Amino acid sequence: MKIEDMILVSVDDHIVEPPEMFDQHVPVAFKDKAPKYVVEANGDGYWSYEDRRIANIGLNAVVGRPRSEYGMEPTAISQMREGAWNVHKRIDDMNVNGLLASINFGTFVGFDGGFFAQSKDKTLAHVMLQAYNDWHIDEWCAAYPGRFIPMACMPIWDINLTVAEVKRVVGKGCHAISFSDNPSLRGFPSIHNSYWEPLWKVCAENRVVLNCHIGTGAAAAHPSMESPIDAWITGMPISIANSASDWLQLRALQTYPDLKIALSEGGIGWIPYFLERADFTFEHHHEWTHTDFGGRKPSDIFREHFITCFIDDKFGLKNRHDIGVDNICYECDYPHSDTLWPEAPEYLMRSFAGMPDGDIDKITHLNAMRAYSFDPFKHIPREQCTVGALRAQAGHVDTTPRSGGGNRPIGEGETRIVTSADVVKLFAGAGRSRPAQESQEA
Amino acid sequence: MKIEDMILVSVDDHIVEPPEMFDQHVPVAFKDKAPKYVVEANGDGYWSYEDRRIANIGLNAVVGRPRSEYGMEPTAISQMREGAWNVHKRIDDMNVNGLLASINFGTFVGFDGGFFAQSKDKTLAHVMLQAYNDWHIDEWCAAYPGRFIPMACMPIWDINLTVAEVKRVVGKGCHAISFSDNPSLRGFPSIHNSYWEPLWKVCAENRVVLNCHIGTGAAAAHPSMESPIDAWITGMPISIANSASDWLQLRALQTYPDLKIALSEGGIGWIPYFLERADFTFEHHHEWTHTDFGGRKPSDIFREHFITCFIDDKFGLKNRHDIGVDNICYECDYPHSDTLWPEAPEYLMRSFAGMPDGDIDKITHLNAMRAYSFDPFKHIPREQCTVGALRAQAGHVDTTPRSGGGNRPIGEGETRIVTSADVVKLFAGAGRSRPAQESQEA
Repeated sequence: MKIEDMILVSVDDHIVEPPEMFDQHVPVAFKDKAPKYVVEANGDGYWSYEDRRIANIGLNAVVGRPRSEYGMEPTAISQMREGAWNVHKRIDDMNVNGLLASINFGTFVGFDGGFFAQSKDKTLAHVMLQAYNDWHIDEWCAAYPGRFIPMACMPIWDINLTVAEVKRVVGKGCHAISFSDNPSLRGFPSIHNSYWEPLWKVCAENRVVLNCHIGTGAAAAHPSMESPIDAWITGMPISIANSASDWLQLRALQTYPDLKIALSEGGIGWIPYFLERADFTFEHHHEWTHTDFGGRKPSDIFREHFITCFIDDKFGLKNRHDIGVDNICYECDYPHSDTLWPEAPEYLMRSFAGMPDGDIDKITHLNAMRAYSFDPFKHIPREQCTVGALRAQAGHVDTTPRSGGGNRPIGEGETRIVTSADVVKLFAGAGRSRPAQESQEA
Repeated sequence: MKIEDMILVSVDDHIVEPPEMFDQHVPVAFKDKAPKYVVEANGDGYWSYEDRRIANIGLNAVVGRPRSEYGMEPTAISQMREGAWNVHKRIDDMNVNGLLASINFGTFVGFDGGFFAQSKDKTLAHVMLQAYNDWHIDEWCAAYPGRFIPMACMPIWDINLTVAEVKRVVGKGCHAISFSDNPSLRGFPSIHNSYWEPLWKVCAENRVVLNCHIGTGAAAAHPSMESPIDAWITGMPISIANSASDWLQLRALQTYPDLKIALSEGGIGWIPYFLERADFTFEHHHEWTHTDFGGRKPSDIFREHFITCFIDDKFGLKNRHDIGVDNICYECDYPHSDTLWPEAPEYLMRSFAGMPDGDIDKITHLNAMRAYSFDPFKHIPREQCTVGALRAQAGHVDTTPRSGGGNRPIGEGETRIVTSADVVKLFAGAGRSRPAQESQEA
């Protein structure tokens, strides 16, 4: 396959929510209670809601910067590449990267939408969550049909509201929800608790994928505060292995053949080992653990129910048949620091070397389309969906790295190794926990 | 290669310490203060030391039981297969399994010997630690020259004592120490702290391997108490990935070419993914993290310094060249529940299918011999070291599974799935934290 003929669908990117996002979607009676985007005197921005202040709005939105500035936290939207938060610029950035379509996780609401569950007034939180989903589906995604796979947040503190919200967003054509990789670590029942049974059922019946992003429960631990930050970054995707083991044992996967779990940003190269280990565990221990996969093996369950994804993973791609060539999707991770934007197609092509076109098509878009009930070709003729066709529309997009403001993990000019302590301090210093009254609303 | 021609050296097995182990090795002045093995009225046993009671002496020593009884905790030495604690019976069990030689981690002292560091009276702890090492090297290992690779515990609370102890045991021919995979999680300085510098130096200069067993710092987490225990078991080996990322960044690995780290019981199939991810992290982030591998890549450092091992891992073996065929050793894990005793050679042979003899020899014994400066052939002619020759000496060894006592994770006859809560309760119930005065000394 030629690079320009690939069709790329990413199952893991991120939105930095734009300041005006709630404006058109919160009922009049609640408008003054909506989360507000606040800009401080020094230009830093944060979201204000109830008594919380969710600053550090860029998290890791370093796309478009020189690599030497990665790890700096943009502390204001003005410091970020516009594609992070402006849907029109996002489409430009997708085009220049040859990316047809994308799933976008939230930022200030948490990758799993945990922001709403942490709110005090749950009635209000439900209103804001629905406004968020409406904005995401009806405004962000709908602006460019065929370019986004919509994904909704859930009011997980109330299982009946959750079921109703799944049905509501399915009615809007949304077949994905964000979910914690381990809700028991977020103060909710474990996935094995009957509390969630109605959710598994409604997701399976409506072909709604649960998207469990790394860091939404069993997050990668900093090995120590003195550890070089590379240790943390290296271990981040594989940190989902513990949760993957847990999901693999979920009884509902045997009850609902259509229930699908995505291990978002989890990588793929470790999966064959993991499946062999899960099968070994079953074969070697089931006589005392009484685990029962109905005559099948854990690896069979995995291939029926799990969606995996990778940014760049030559070893995983080489061993795709030991994962399941139908279980692998691509992810771009824009605008985070691991992204290969705007050269993702070049990296992919190198990693696909020698792979048959049929497998490339599955991995780049067909698997994602099937899993997420998503058909971009209904909206855009297939020949306009390729890397070549999209890049042809992006002649005006400037991808030159641009310096931006924000905090540095270490002093300017310093060249010592950045540690976990530096990055933890950076996050704290960005004001996540400073009280809202310190600042002034925008 | 024929199954009977393999020569097997395992770099991860376990001793359950025999009651009389301190008798010959504690100086007279301290004899009455040595840890004592106590048997309760009901037959349960535990070690008593200072105000601590370390019960559950079998941990996981279920070898030789019917698989339906795995997970039961032998709570007395009398309930265990003798090979767990009796060196002569151990040799029988090694012979019947075709195993030439073995590294044995401790049990009541912790896989990393953490027992001593947790003691109140550190002068006394140092005496007992030296007695432990003397027993291990001079009594257990020396009983059968060429059959054990000795490994020592370290008084890590005092770096000077530690350096002295390394030199002392090197004098006895010991080239391995047990060490926490993440000492910062045990209340000690992180591996990046200069505190450890003398240890790296003395280990490198004397070719002493640091053996970091899973569960000695960053242990596998139970995903939730309601999780089927298979989830925990599945995720156990790969849980060392976080610590492996951390060790990979250790500056001393660049200073000391001979410094070696063993990821004991960590498995191998995930390593190629891990190395690619570490290289990606370095290439993609070093401009802001300032990580520096002296012109090389993290994967180069790994292949120079790390020892990996597997119990059964077909995928890892198939991809051995992506790990480093010189970095892979075999482990038997006797007497724990993952062991394939007494059929390890049969499992290995299946997993080695199609592998050249040269690679099999490296993986089964040559790599371990080189890494641990261990030459069994000085003591036993090579032709007497093979699976076939050893098994020929074991005609009298009865391997029939035998029922034994101990605690059950769930009620007898129950067939529900065993959960993390059941196993956590089992460990607690075995009396780990019950005060010593409840019981009677043996």
